Amino acid sequence: LPRNSFSERALAEKVLKGDLRSASRLLTLVENRDPAALPALKILYPHTGKAHLIGVTGPAGVGKSTLINLLISAFRKKRKSVGVLAIDPSSPLTGGAILGDRLRMRPHFLDKGVFIRSLATRGAWGGISPALFDAIHILDAMGKEIIFIETVGVGQDEVQIARLAETLLLVLSPGIGDEVQILKAGLLEIGDIIAVNKGDLNEADLLVQQLQETVLGRPIVKVAAAEEEGLSTLVSQLEKKLIENRSDRARKINFVREEIQELLREALVQEGLSDPLVARQVERILSRKQDPYSFIRSWMKKKGLKTFS
Amino acid sequence: LPRNSFSERALAEKVLKGDLRSASRLLTLVENRDPAALPALKILYPHTGKAHLIGVTGPAGVGKSTLINLLISAFRKKRKSVGVLAIDPSSPLTGGAILGDRLRMRPHFLDKGVFIRSLATRGAWGGISPALFDAIHILDAMGKEIIFIETVGVGQDEVQIARLAETLLLVLSPGIGDEVQILKAGLLEIGDIIAVNKGDLNEADLLVQQLQETVLGRPIVKVAAAEEEGLSTLVSQLEKKLIENRSDRARKINFVREEIQELLREALVQEGLSDPLVARQVERILSRKQDPYSFIRSWMKKKGLKTFS
Repeated sequence: LPRNSFSERALAEKVLKGDLRSASRLLTLVENRDPAALPALKILYPHTGKAHLIGVTGPAGVGKSTLINLLISAFRKKRKSVGVLAIDPSSPLTGGAILGDRLRMRPHFLDKGVFIRSLATRGAWGGISPALFDAIHILDAMGKEIIFIETVGVGQDEVQIARLAETLLLVLSPGIGDEVQILKAGLLEIGDIIAVNKGDLNEADLLVQQLQETVLGRPIVKVAAAEEEGLSTLVSQLEKKLIENRSDRARKINFVREEIQELLREALVQEGLSDPLVARQVERILSRKQDPYSFIRSWMKKKGLKTFS
Repeated sequence: LPRNSFSERALAEKVLKGDLRSASRLLTLVENRDPAALPALKILYPHTGKAHLIGVTGPAGVGKSTLINLLISAFRKKRKSVGVLAIDPSSPLTGGAILGDRLRMRPHFLDKGVFIRSLATRGAWGGISPALFDAIHILDAMGKEIIFIETVGVGQDEVQIARLAETLLLVLSPGIGDEVQILKAGLLEIGDIIAVNKGDLNEADLLVQQLQETVLGRPIVKVAAAEEEGLSTLVSQLEKKLIENRSDRARKINFVREEIQELLREALVQEGLSDPLVARQVERILSRKQDPYSFIRSWMKKKGLKTFS
C-alpha cells in the first residue's frame, strides 16, 4: 500500500462529498504530477463519467470569461452544479499559470455550487498533459454537473483540448480581424455552437452573416452582456446539444483513448529517460561512434519492444 | 536490409555532395516521419557535427527574416555556405507549414551556396519533433557551415528550440509593446546576442538603453536594413560567439541528449499505442470497470518496464 493511503482515501472521500478545499488540494497534486494523487484518483474514477463537458474556445479578447460568467449564472438558476477549468498558457520558463482573466469570474467565488480553477496543463513535453484528464475526473467526481473547459487562443493545443469536450462552444466577437483567417483554417470546423459575443457592437450583425455563409447547419447565437435574450437562446441551444452529444459513443471512446495515450506517453517517456544506458550512450553518439537511430533501435530491442525499421 | 537501401544510399551520397534537390527530398521524408529516410540518415550521421547552429528568435513582426537575409549576404561574402531552417507554426488541423515570411528570403533562391527550408516541426504530440534534429543533420552533412534556425514567437516550443542552438540571436524591435513583459519572463535569459532591429526608428535608442539595464554582459547591437555599420558589428559579434561556443561541451552534450529523448519518445509512444492490448482496454475503462491508472501500471509491468507508483 502507498505510504499515505489512509489520508489519500480520506481526501478522495471528501472530494466525493464535494468539499472544495480537498478538491483544490488534489488538483494541486495532479498539476505537479505528484504520485501521491494516484490513490485518490483511483478511488474517484468509478464515480466519474456523469458530468457534461463544455469546451469554450476562441481567440483572446473575445470575452470568453465574461460569457462563461453569464453561463454560470444561467445554469446556477437551473440549480445545476458548475465547474470551470481555465487552461492557461504556461510561461515558457516558469511553467506557472497566469491568472489574469479568472478575476472576472469573481462574482461566483462565494457560491459553493461553483468551482473555478486555473490549470497549467502544458508539461515539459508540450501538448495536453494528463493533468487535464485528472482534473476533469476530480470535478466530475465531486458532483459538478456542468464542467466548462476554457482555453485561450486558437493553436494546436487548444484544438486538441476542444476535441475532448462533449460539446464545443466557439466564441467570436466583432473586430478580431486577422484571426478570422486562422479560424477559417480549422476552428470553425470543430465548434458545435458558435457564440458571437459583444453582440451590441455595430459589426456584430455582419459577423453573424459572414458566419452563416461559412458554417452550415450549426447554430450561431448573438450574445451581449446587457441583453437577456441572446443568453437564454444560447443556454437552450447548449442544453439541446448536451442531450444530443450524451449518446455520442464515439466522443466518449475518443476521450478514453486520448487519456490512455497521455498516461502511456508520460509513463514511457519517464521510463526511457531514467534508463542509465541512455545517459551512457550520449558520449558515443557525440563522438559519432554511433548514430542515435541505431541506438534507439537496439535499446527498444533489448527491452523487448517493437522497432519500426 | 531495408527494401530501398540502394536508392537511399545514393540519396545520402548526393546529399553529402551538397545536392539541393536530394536534400529537399530527404527533408520531406523526414518531415513526414517516413521510415524510408532512416537508411540515409544513418549514412549521413558520421559526417555531421561540423556546422555552426545559430538560433534566431523573437516576437512576430520584429523583422527576423529580413535580418537573416542580411546575415546570409554577409556570410556569403565571407564565402561561407549557409542553410536556413524556418520553423513554422503548424496549422492546427492540417499540420502544414505556413510559408509567408520565407518569400522575403527570395534574393538568395538562385544562390547555390544557400539552402532555405521551411519545416513544420510540431508533431501530433506538440513540442519539438525529431524532424528538427534530422533536418539539422541533413544541412550539416550537405556542408552548410552556418545553419540559421528561425523560430516565430516566444512560446515554450521556441525556447526549447532556441536552447538547441550553439549560439542564440534574440531579435527585438521598437514598438513590440506588451511583449517586453514576456521577454523579461524568459527569453532575455537565453539570448547570447541581442539585435535591436529597425534601428532607424526613433524609439530604438530607448529600447537599447532599457535592454542595457536588464541584460548584463551580453552584446546588444542596433541594426537597420539601410545601414552597413550595425550589421557588420553584429556579424563580428556572431563570429566571436561561434568560436567561443564551439568549445562549449555542455551545449553539445545537451543537443545529443535532447535528440535521444525525442527519438525515444517517438519510438516508445508508437510502441505503446500500436499495442492491441491498449485498444481492447478502452471499453473496460469507458464502462468504469477499470481505472486508466491501474491499466497503465499493469501494462508497463507486463512489458518489464518500471512503474512509478
